[in-house]
Amino acid sequence: MKKIGVALLGLGTVGGGTYRILRKNHELFRKNEGLDINVLHVIERNMKRVEELGVDPAIVSENIDDVVNNPDISIVCEFFGGIEPAKTFLIRSLEAGKSIVTANKELFSKHWPELEAAAKRGKAGLYFEASCVGGVPVIRTICEGMQANTVLSIKGIVNGTTNYILSAMSKEGTSYADALKKAQELGYAEANPSADVDGFDATYKLSILSTLAYHKKVPVERIYREGISGVSTKDIAIGGSLGYTLKLLAISKNRNGKIEARVHPAFIKNEHPLASVSGSFNAVHMVGDSVGDIMMYGRGAGDLPTGSAIVSDIVYCAKQTKHAYLPFKNDGSSRDCDFITDFESKYYIRLTAVDKCGTLGKISTVFGKNRVGITTVLQKDTVGENGTTDIIFVTHDTFESAVRKALKEISSLEGVKSVDAVIRVED
Amino acid sequence: MKKIGVALLGLGTVGGGTYRILRKNHELFRKNEGLDINVLHVIERNMKRVEELGVDPAIVSENIDDVVNNPDISIVCEFFGGIEPAKTFLIRSLEAGKSIVTANKELFSKHWPELEAAAKRGKAGLYFEASCVGGVPVIRTICEGMQANTVLSIKGIVNGTTNYILSAMSKEGTSYADALKKAQELGYAEANPSADVDGFDATYKLSILSTLAYHKKVPVERIYREGISGVSTKDIAIGGSLGYTLKLLAISKNRNGKIEARVHPAFIKNEHPLASVSGSFNAVHMVGDSVGDIMMYGRGAGDLPTGSAIVSDIVYCAKQTKHAYLPFKNDGSSRDCDFITDFESKYYIRLTAVDKCGTLGKISTVFGKNRVGITTVLQKDTVGENGTTDIIFVTHDTFESAVRKALKEISSLEGVKSVDAVIRVED
Repeated sequence: MKKIGVALLGLGTVGGGTYRILRKNHELFRKNEGLDINVLHVIERNMKRVEELGVDPAIVSENIDDVVNNPDISIVCEFFGGIEPAKTFLIRSLEAGKSIVTANKELFSKHWPELEAAAKRGKAGLYFEASCVGGVPVIRTICEGMQANTVLSIKGIVNGTTNYILSAMSKEGTSYADALKKAQELGYAEANPSADVDGFDATYKLSILSTLAYHKKVPVERIYREGISGVSTKDIAIGGSLGYTLKLLAISKNRNGKIEARVHPAFIKNEHPLASVSGSFNAVHMVGDSVGDIMMYGRGAGDLPTGSAIVSDIVYCAKQTKHAYLPFKNDGSSRDCDFITDFESKYYIRLTAVDKCGTLGKISTVFGKNRVGITTVLQKDTVGENGTTDIIFVTHDTFESAVRKALKEISSLEGVKSVDAVIRVED
Repeated sequence: MKKIGVALLGLGTVGGGTYRILRKNHELFRKNEGLDINVLHVIERNMKRVEELGVDPAIVSENIDDVVNNPDISIVCEFFGGIEPAKTFLIRSLEAGKSIVTANKELFSKHWPELEAAAKRGKAGLYFEASCVGGVPVIRTICEGMQANTVLSIKGIVNGTTNYILSAMSKEGTSYADALKKAQELGYAEANPSADVDGFDATYKLSILSTLAYHKKVPVERIYREGISGVSTKDIAIGGSLGYTLKLLAISKNRNGKIEARVHPAFIKNEHPLASVSGSFNAVHMVGDSVGDIMMYGRGAGDLPTGSAIVSDIVYCAKQTKHAYLPFKNDGSSRDCDFITDFESKYYIRLTAVDKCGTLGKISTVFGKNRVGITTVLQKDTVGENGTTDIIFVTHDTFESAVRKALKEISSLEGVKSVDAVIRVED
């Protein structure tokens, strides 16, 4: 039986979940996988947590040397999150020939090439299934299940916090502020929620998934990002009446080798399989040129779901005889790497205008002049203060630059008070 | 670069799709996977098809010896379907040390142990991702993504033909006969549709998925099977008014090590992620004790989707240094393998009864006596011929045996004309 020594760096939520799964399933792995997996060292300073989880204090320290210099440890799992000290500890582990397993999407998306270089030096492996969509093996699917495909697009709901907030706003008509507050009370959102609600977390995951799917480095800083803090219950309700659900989507597309990547709130049709992914669930929808549409769905966070992916990587890593690396075709910064920044999409636009004959005609003329085709116009018959009314437009597929240009012109038209919402609509 | 010689047995729909994917992506596999994959031999007698696909006639024959004796062929892909000659050809290939890749769920579910024995003799591998849910890597997910879990349940929509028929009946109110006829016209159903509509195909797939998920052989003949030919548009509509969608589900559950497995029409709540899987799409929903709920969704059939899974297996197989076999814990026939046959489920029951005071009371008394708890009673106010009316019951979780016993008694009650429908309801 193959003996596998594991080190855990941190015993937080996911670290603790991983420890519990490894302990509970020790016999299962011997029986089903032929692996005798044991935790040989833990880096953690919170001894109360150590006791709570029943970890033998004799294998706990705060010194990474205890991991790097232990020849019986072959796999190092990191749960610190953030860049340092995770990066230094993992690079030292890799250079010592130890493979690493992590859920650290920020570190991985920002420093992948350095980690990969260290892995090559140490002939060790990089495993990060847990970094995207918790326990759902979406990375395994891309790498081991879609080899026959040129991936054409990825659309994901990859952040549970924002999906919980948008679901609450949609189902209960709660305001953004109230939904955020409730998410914080339930522990779904951090005290400082920026990483989630401003879309940073989603860009990390989209960077990782897109890089694997397109075999091209798609760096975080090349991903357009827009969070959900500007989203109003009003637009969610109007979109709902038009058959749309609002989601924070992480989208990337391979347009004949040119990559576009963006994270922003978007309306999708209620019939789209992503529309029914609600609450803290996550899902990734992909299109491959052979397989067509596929989607994977599950819990995107939590101690045991994410621990499940960490432990899956431990088992997977333990069975590899040769670790694979991604052949980066670019570093994302060079000129020969094409990124699209003028996105083509449909748009939902809400204006406040004076309810007066001729205003709609003037607006439509400007859209037409800028080659922005309109599929839907909705004018609410309720007239507000100062005789103003809402006018909603949904466009055909059009370039972002054309919409921006048209809206600039429209906002200076007589009778147009303000452009209140511009939300992309995805098929 | 590693050279991989492939043989294709049959150039039908999936065989042709596989050939086209391999030819189109030859450079992709060299670049992304470091594999030089070439089709070295094809077994096919239809030379018109050979020409249509542009296969070099020099590598086509009808003689399996041309494959078995070719030392440059390491992977044999089978597309005949059915048991023979597929079984003989594949066993000969395995014994000659060639790994096999197949979508043949009938062969695999019925003769897995023999194929595995031949694979061990030849030190070759068995790959059958394409046998379940077309291009969606559900087998890879179970084997390489859920190792940290004891799988608790599988619920799948694994047959596109029946899902197309039920979706049409549900959305358009079409009768079963008309929906079947349309499916046949569109090529979704065979002239003899029994393998699909009677649920055989789904039992093959459920056998394979359950065997992998529970690490216990779940043989086809131990799976309860009920097709969709008895389903009426009326019950679909009534179920719809109660918030349910009807699907042909392949269900297996691991109840503390005892396995239950069944294929039958079932109502599921509209909010369940499987409910929105419509038309020819397939999906598999699983629950693991660590990961919780996960679902995978995509096209269950077709030349390119299934070819995508075949080619994924070719690439995957080519990278293995040691082939894995499933450690069968039983052969499915021995006494120590526990199967549950008295299922616990909720039930939808429709009766025709005389619209007379007291009938409902008598029926309810019999249910109560048999410990069948009722959550919903629906009596339609339309009275039909002879003063009869429909009464619909939905039960709490109850044993099948209790329902059957109660219904036997109820059907002989005065005032009860007939028991018209008994449909299981899954959470």
